[in-house]
Amino acid sequence: MTAPVIPVAPPLKDELDIVIPTIRNLDFLEMWRPFFQPYHLIIVQDGDPTKIIKVPEGFDYELYNRNDINRILGPKASCISFKDSACRCFGFMISKKKYIYTIDDDCFVAKDPTGKDINALQQHIHNLLTPSTPFFFNTLYDPYREGADFVRGYPFSMREGVPTAISHGLWLNIPDYDAPTQLVKPRERNTRYVDAVMTIPKRTIFPMCGMNLGFDRELIGPAMYFGLMGDGQPIGRYDDMWAGWCAKVICDHLSLGVKTGLPYIWHSKASNPFVNLKKEYKGIYWQEEIIPFFQSVTFSKESTTVQKCYIELSKMVKEKLSPVDPYFQKLADAMLTWIEAWEELNSPAKSAPAANADTKKK
Amino acid sequence: MTAPVIPVAPPLKDELDIVIPTIRNLDFLEMWRPFFQPYHLIIVQDGDPTKIIKVPEGFDYELYNRNDINRILGPKASCISFKDSACRCFGFMISKKKYIYTIDDDCFVAKDPTGKDINALQQHIHNLLTPSTPFFFNTLYDPYREGADFVRGYPFSMREGVPTAISHGLWLNIPDYDAPTQLVKPRERNTRYVDAVMTIPKRTIFPMCGMNLGFDRELIGPAMYFGLMGDGQPIGRYDDMWAGWCAKVICDHLSLGVKTGLPYIWHSKASNPFVNLKKEYKGIYWQEEIIPFFQSVTFSKESTTVQKCYIELSKMVKEKLSPVDPYFQKLADAMLTWIEAWEELNSPAKSAPAANADTKKK
Repeated sequence: MTAPVIPVAPPLKDELDIVIPTIRNLDFLEMWRPFFQPYHLIIVQDGDPTKIIKVPEGFDYELYNRNDINRILGPKASCISFKDSACRCFGFMISKKKYIYTIDDDCFVAKDPTGKDINALQQHIHNLLTPSTPFFFNTLYDPYREGADFVRGYPFSMREGVPTAISHGLWLNIPDYDAPTQLVKPRERNTRYVDAVMTIPKRTIFPMCGMNLGFDRELIGPAMYFGLMGDGQPIGRYDDMWAGWCAKVICDHLSLGVKTGLPYIWHSKASNPFVNLKKEYKGIYWQEEIIPFFQSVTFSKESTTVQKCYIELSKMVKEKLSPVDPYFQKLADAMLTWIEAWEELNSPAKSAPAANADTKKK
Repeated sequence: MTAPVIPVAPPLKDELDIVIPTIRNLDFLEMWRPFFQPYHLIIVQDGDPTKIIKVPEGFDYELYNRNDINRILGPKASCISFKDSACRCFGFMISKKKYIYTIDDDCFVAKDPTGKDINALQQHIHNLLTPSTPFFFNTLYDPYREGADFVRGYPFSMREGVPTAISHGLWLNIPDYDAPTQLVKPRERNTRYVDAVMTIPKRTIFPMCGMNLGFDRELIGPAMYFGLMGDGQPIGRYDDMWAGWCAKVICDHLSLGVKTGLPYIWHSKASNPFVNLKKEYKGIYWQEEIIPFFQSVTFSKESTTVQKCYIELSKMVKEKLSPVDPYFQKLADAMLTWIEAWEELNSPAKSAPAANADTKKK
């Protein structure tokens, strides 16, 4: 099996936006310049909208602060979190591109075992442009990589795979641990470079981290809602988890693939575990009920699009998780608001004016 | 989380048998001497029983040929394949140890990326002695390895894991491809060392290769039947696949874990793809129906042991796969014979005399 040919660099230049949530100057982009400069950036400024965020010279970007979000979405802006990196999903919604790559501003370029800088974006693009294989496990990992294939015993009818909707990248140095694990193992660093990409099997949900994440917006965008977190909410640091759980069950229903593994980024510093514990503690016990809920989710046959699935899912969340905490009622409502806002910004008739209304172009 | 301490070498010396099916002198053991010599070997001689198999000096072994198998099992010997490496499962049955490691005689010691010889057996033992995590996916792979743990969003109630029943190792150099892939890619070599061990999620079946395989005989032994292959049968090269499909659905039902990944062995030479095609071609189309069958298998609550599950599975095979080909009726019967023979050799009262009856001890 020959791997699909990757176009010459920069691939997908006009079809991909890089979304970055931030509260500070984006000096970290200097390190990414060789890889990111050809692409368009969507910067979502969190917190105080009067603060000026500096972006290094030469990058093509648009920047949205809270005032912009409120102006563009009106009352529907209530679904976008404030003082939490969950606000990044506004960038997913406002983008008009087919693909999104999102990265945190404390993530730097990692090196592969030969010492070469890893072009994370290029690997995500490769992951997204090659199929996934969710229906059966391949022991040699991604069969579409060069030098690999399907092993003996892999049904031939399943070798075409399915379109890949999500590419979940990993992190060297500071691993993505919860607060209790951070507290117990403050010095643990991830030094293991695992040279693999793999499809997460169907009916297996996973903890999706938003630090280093690519996805096909056309295939799964409306499910990439990062929930209600941060200011005024009882929970934080579960924004990407929520999106991952929702997106995975919808991918399973619609026969779309989710890959994890390469590429690595260098996660530079651990966030404060005491602050994290305060944000997480409700999530830590809620997840004991949330995971079984998602493991049992099944959609009706009528849910044939991501939007329809997401609306059906919001009803299930309201019914099954509201007894856990009234927060989930609010979250379920916000999920509906998110879809309404998505449709408003992304319907063919309205998308152009809305997107261009209040943004700052370089 | 601290990884369980591995005992000083040689670990599990008196609790593990190495099972090797062969038709030739076992010169390949010379290379494995530093790692295998402390352990007991069970050699299952395939083909002509009058042929003398030479075993290098200094190894502790017992050897069974077809005459031995017939004498020990009587009419039940019909369930053990002839002229096929599937005969190795006789070694699983006759062993009295808790753990089995099985390896093919064309598999040599591989080197890790630093150039160090890989002690495959030791890694399998580590895999088997640490838990598996089949209920939720961990993006940093095996959380019980040093330097790794459960990532943010992994439910705490699931972090104890479940006992590991199977450790499936991989192969550098010649990958385990089917005949069509061998024919299409005769020069492909596996050079990618993926430094990972992972649990195969619940409800995901996988292509289990018997070349480099460890398992806990007490936990899953009776499901490790390699079927009817080779001489007089319409199919070959699906022996390990069959065992893997059966064992995985039973592991899922009994909440046991299956790991895949490290360790690698060096697979020295590809078997003849034309011969393989002849052996495989029925399997290649049958598997299109076998895989959906296994994906839909569910056991009754009464099946609380591996034996009971296996008997229930044989009934399902007879009912659901016999329409595919009458071969599956024969196979289903052989599955029952296998369990009867297993019980006979492994019941507390009878095991000792049967095991020692007709074997050659060094």
